[in-house]
Amino acid sequence: MTANDKSTHDKLLDVAMRLFHEQGYAATGVSTILREAGVNSGSLYYFFPSKEALLEGVLDRYMELLWPEVLDPAFAQTTDPVERIFSVLAGYRHMLTLTNCTMGCPIGNLALELSDTYPMVREKVKGLFEAWCAGIQKCLDAAADRLPAHVNRESLAKFILTVMEGGMMQARAHRSLEPYDASVAHLRGYFDQLLADGRAKRADASAG
Amino acid sequence: MTANDKSTHDKLLDVAMRLFHEQGYAATGVSTILREAGVNSGSLYYFFPSKEALLEGVLDRYMELLWPEVLDPAFAQTTDPVERIFSVLAGYRHMLTLTNCTMGCPIGNLALELSDTYPMVREKVKGLFEAWCAGIQKCLDAAADRLPAHVNRESLAKFILTVMEGGMMQARAHRSLEPYDASVAHLRGYFDQLLADGRAKRADASAG
Repeated sequence: MTANDKSTHDKLLDVAMRLFHEQGYAATGVSTILREAGVNSGSLYYFFPSKEALLEGVLDRYMELLWPEVLDPAFAQTTDPVERIFSVLAGYRHMLTLTNCTMGCPIGNLALELSDTYPMVREKVKGLFEAWCAGIQKCLDAAADRLPAHVNRESLAKFILTVMEGGMMQARAHRSLEPYDASVAHLRGYFDQLLADGRAKRADASAG
Repeated sequence: MTANDKSTHDKLLDVAMRLFHEQGYAATGVSTILREAGVNSGSLYYFFPSKEALLEGVLDRYMELLWPEVLDPAFAQTTDPVERIFSVLAGYRHMLTLTNCTMGCPIGNLALELSDTYPMVREKVKGLFEAWCAGIQKCLDAAADRLPAHVNRESLAKFILTVMEGGMMQARAHRSLEPYDASVAHLRGYFDQLLADGRAKRADASAG
């Protein structure tokens, strides 16, 4: 790919990513993508033979960006593994504040809009959810000695994704951070209890 | 409205409700609604002057159905207020099993697809979420003396909606009940801790 090609290719992906996020996949016309990218349809179809191929490119791009744009910056805020999880959740809160509680999680949106229609989307969204949960699970694994032994960390990572996605959805419907904050506060309460339970069990073990 | 009118009106709502749930709003063509309802476009526009008016009718119908089809049948399973909440969540699990983990929550889908585009949808979805949470909060209020005093029951009801919606989303992406079950299991763990905490505080109070 020439530098010029790469620039056109990336511009199409950036514009499609933004428009799919702003208005959804079905509601985004190819003509709008072309106009906003300043690209003609020949160039689009050279790189992406269909709108679905463009969507596939967008989903791949989200996977490339997961660590550098979502997890790494959040993890850099603190060394405490549990706080790193809440730092990721604070990142989504920040996204909500920037958009006045509109738009939500781009992956969650595509998951609900398209999972049943495009097997490719479902597979890629599944992969993105798994990669996100694997990142969160690294934190849980690093905190394993502070959690009660019975806690299934893989399943807890999924629960954390559930809280993020469900909280974002309600924040959009209410146009308010309040339901997101409420959801994260209850997750915090659950963690406080798990960590207290872990401390009590370790105290019992060292006393016994 | 004549009986015939009512039958046409209701048939249009039923078909639109099913199609919006199956494939989303933008992806559902008016011509498909007409074909599946066996109705001509004149009749459609007599009752619903636009596709958006039909969507509004569908959202109003979901509100009418919330208690008779979602909450009442779940609450009828048990008299224990905490178990009534988990009975509602079991109802959504049953919906996932019936659809092989496709389709998800119709309100959550419309929330993510359309909240930013149609203020009417956002308002109606907000109203549906509030009504759902009010139903759940009735259970929490009935169990108030078993929960720690610091628990904000309004916010806890929103957290329960978060768990349902986030769990359903992941179940669809994974085509598996497992993430939904994992999310509900952690919510159960959180409740077990809250109820144990409530018992301990009451024991302290009666001992003191």
